[in-house]
Amino acid sequence: MNFIQNPKITDPKGYTAAAMRAGFKRKRKDLCIIKSDVPAKCSVKFTKNMVKAAPLLVAMESLKKSGNMLQALIINSGNANAGTGQQGLKDTRDTITLLSEKIGVPEDLILVSSTGVIGELLDMHKMRDGIDNLYSQLSFDGGIGCAEAILTTDTVEKSFGVQINIQGVEVTISGITKGSGMIQPNMATMLAFVTTDAEIDHELLDEIFTECVEKTFNMITVDGHTSTNDTALIMANGLAGNPIIQPGTPEAALFHDALMTLSLEMAKSIVKDGEGATKFVTIHVDNVDIFENAKKMAFGIANSALVKTAIFGQDPNWGRILSAAGMVDVVFDPDKADLRINGVYIYQNGSPVILEKTVMKQLMLPVELDIILDVYTGEESALVYTSDLSYEYVKINAEYHT
Amino acid sequence: MNFIQNPKITDPKGYTAAAMRAGFKRKRKDLCIIKSDVPAKCSVKFTKNMVKAAPLLVAMESLKKSGNMLQALIINSGNANAGTGQQGLKDTRDTITLLSEKIGVPEDLILVSSTGVIGELLDMHKMRDGIDNLYSQLSFDGGIGCAEAILTTDTVEKSFGVQINIQGVEVTISGITKGSGMIQPNMATMLAFVTTDAEIDHELLDEIFTECVEKTFNMITVDGHTSTNDTALIMANGLAGNPIIQPGTPEAALFHDALMTLSLEMAKSIVKDGEGATKFVTIHVDNVDIFENAKKMAFGIANSALVKTAIFGQDPNWGRILSAAGMVDVVFDPDKADLRINGVYIYQNGSPVILEKTVMKQLMLPVELDIILDVYTGEESALVYTSDLSYEYVKINAEYHT
Repeated sequence: MNFIQNPKITDPKGYTAAAMRAGFKRKRKDLCIIKSDVPAKCSVKFTKNMVKAAPLLVAMESLKKSGNMLQALIINSGNANAGTGQQGLKDTRDTITLLSEKIGVPEDLILVSSTGVIGELLDMHKMRDGIDNLYSQLSFDGGIGCAEAILTTDTVEKSFGVQINIQGVEVTISGITKGSGMIQPNMATMLAFVTTDAEIDHELLDEIFTECVEKTFNMITVDGHTSTNDTALIMANGLAGNPIIQPGTPEAALFHDALMTLSLEMAKSIVKDGEGATKFVTIHVDNVDIFENAKKMAFGIANSALVKTAIFGQDPNWGRILSAAGMVDVVFDPDKADLRINGVYIYQNGSPVILEKTVMKQLMLPVELDIILDVYTGEESALVYTSDLSYEYVKINAEYHT
Repeated sequence: MNFIQNPKITDPKGYTAAAMRAGFKRKRKDLCIIKSDVPAKCSVKFTKNMVKAAPLLVAMESLKKSGNMLQALIINSGNANAGTGQQGLKDTRDTITLLSEKIGVPEDLILVSSTGVIGELLDMHKMRDGIDNLYSQLSFDGGIGCAEAILTTDTVEKSFGVQINIQGVEVTISGITKGSGMIQPNMATMLAFVTTDAEIDHELLDEIFTECVEKTFNMITVDGHTSTNDTALIMANGLAGNPIIQPGTPEAALFHDALMTLSLEMAKSIVKDGEGATKFVTIHVDNVDIFENAKKMAFGIANSALVKTAIFGQDPNWGRILSAAGMVDVVFDPDKADLRINGVYIYQNGSPVILEKTVMKQLMLPVELDIILDVYTGEESALVYTSDLSYEYVKINAEYHT
């Protein structure tokens, strides 16, 4: 498996795209179209928040009708089209109709995705002008601008690509994603789009993508808040020309590993660019009776405001970490637990390890921290990725007004 | 029912106390003893955090032996004696032995409570000197210093008292409490001590106190973190001389109402003095199918970093509030929900209410905010009290080092 240098969402065969600034937000590109030459097999995960944005509700209908086939995406940032009632649904449907007429793709094969401010109606004049402008510019190079067009408070573009060899044929998987607030995805992150030219069994694609999302996008948290617009999707158009990847084969394993690697890089990139983040923290909770308990404890630690501020303050505050794990209704004996930060034990057998002040201070200086809690109630473990809670986080979210 | 002016923990008949600065922390009183003249019926709620401090583990044993009777409390702040292993347990037991010898109260009737830094051993020299100093000073006036002695990062003392008339006899209930970080109590708040001279059936006392704790201390949150040391207790020594309060009587109802009122004031005082708090927010979630769901949604809103920072920024961000309620696995239809802040509808029937910018801004200026979410899936409701998330919260918790 090779990582692609300067990857773009159109790297897999048979994809074109175009991006522009339509004016939904001030300074950056904020609208893009991604199109496959042919209908692609698709797997999509939406937010489990009860409050779902209009584009998600419409997409659920379309995917049902199309049998999870998809040919084109249109994504805008700057406006989430969430909490916009009947008008919001109509605006999404009108967007689909407009695009369908321009690019000749059936409506049921088009998916709209929106991200940004909640509760404001989409400016459909801007959408119409944007589509008029963009549809004729769809190209391989157009893929470059898409990573920018989907961002909101993100500070960097997040674009990734890998290539694998399936029985002599080069297969490419590319992804773009964005954060960076309202991030504790439940079934999918804020937005993640993956394209591939692999020819692959549809059920297998869905199975692999589901597992990837569970283990990567669903294991990150910036602020514990599941968004109204979370969407992660993969399109596989089969244009690489590889023999179809079937379940239970070495090729399936290869594709699985490649997609998992790509998804993990994408998910981590969201946390690293989390609002106000100064640290990238991996929380391991190990040797637990069942996975769900390990996950609960890891998220308990990752979402604790006290743990997050301690990390921002570069304080190896084992008391906050341990008590955060202790409050999620999972039974363990704190007297038998161990806690390590970047390999150094700070709590063992019911007592803190006495470290010199300078060692304590040094311990927390790295930007990347591994916090490992062992509770010895079993053999399962969970990994959660998170950021710290800084002044900048408060600033961003106290000043980002409705 | 009358509130007492300048209340103190010794206002009920038959209680003495003493408080001093023993040196566990820098500037304030940090040790106190509260004693009843006779053994008192007691009800105690401890944290449900798996990580429990040494004094709680010892108290659980003693209360079992004494049949939930209690005569003296010794409380220190500045050191929580949590995560201190076997030595921590020994230090708590030694404290009890020392005090028992000095004041002639059996060991099983003495409860130690500690709050402050986690993971450091108690300085037993200071404890010994403190007890030597304090035991001979126990007095009615000594009650004044106790509210100060139990504080940690709190900025104000929290002392309350009410009086009721039980069949011609004046009965007094007094309470002191403290916060102000690691506050989302689960069965009890950080620390709350209530004394009364009521003569009351022991089971009834426990039943009423349990309900009060559930509806007051367990419905507050500052930062969503359940502490290792949470303790709420009531002692009833019966010295008022009232005819014993029995279940199902008007007197039981009167006592219930008085204790509920007192507990609510105590709980609210913790939120108002929450770390870095600039707002006191009451979250109502109304018309829900079952109470547990209403509570989940209310805590979902109250603990959302995005909601809390929006409140700090004086932004009536209904999208964050609604989506916070939407992510706690409770089914409701956002298109039928209503949202009000201080009586003004900001979201109705699936869409935001269009308010003038100046009205929106005015709405969030008061220090006390009532946020009311109606979801119309039933008739239950929950009330949760919380504070906002400010720069000051981050400052306090990034700089409060282990």
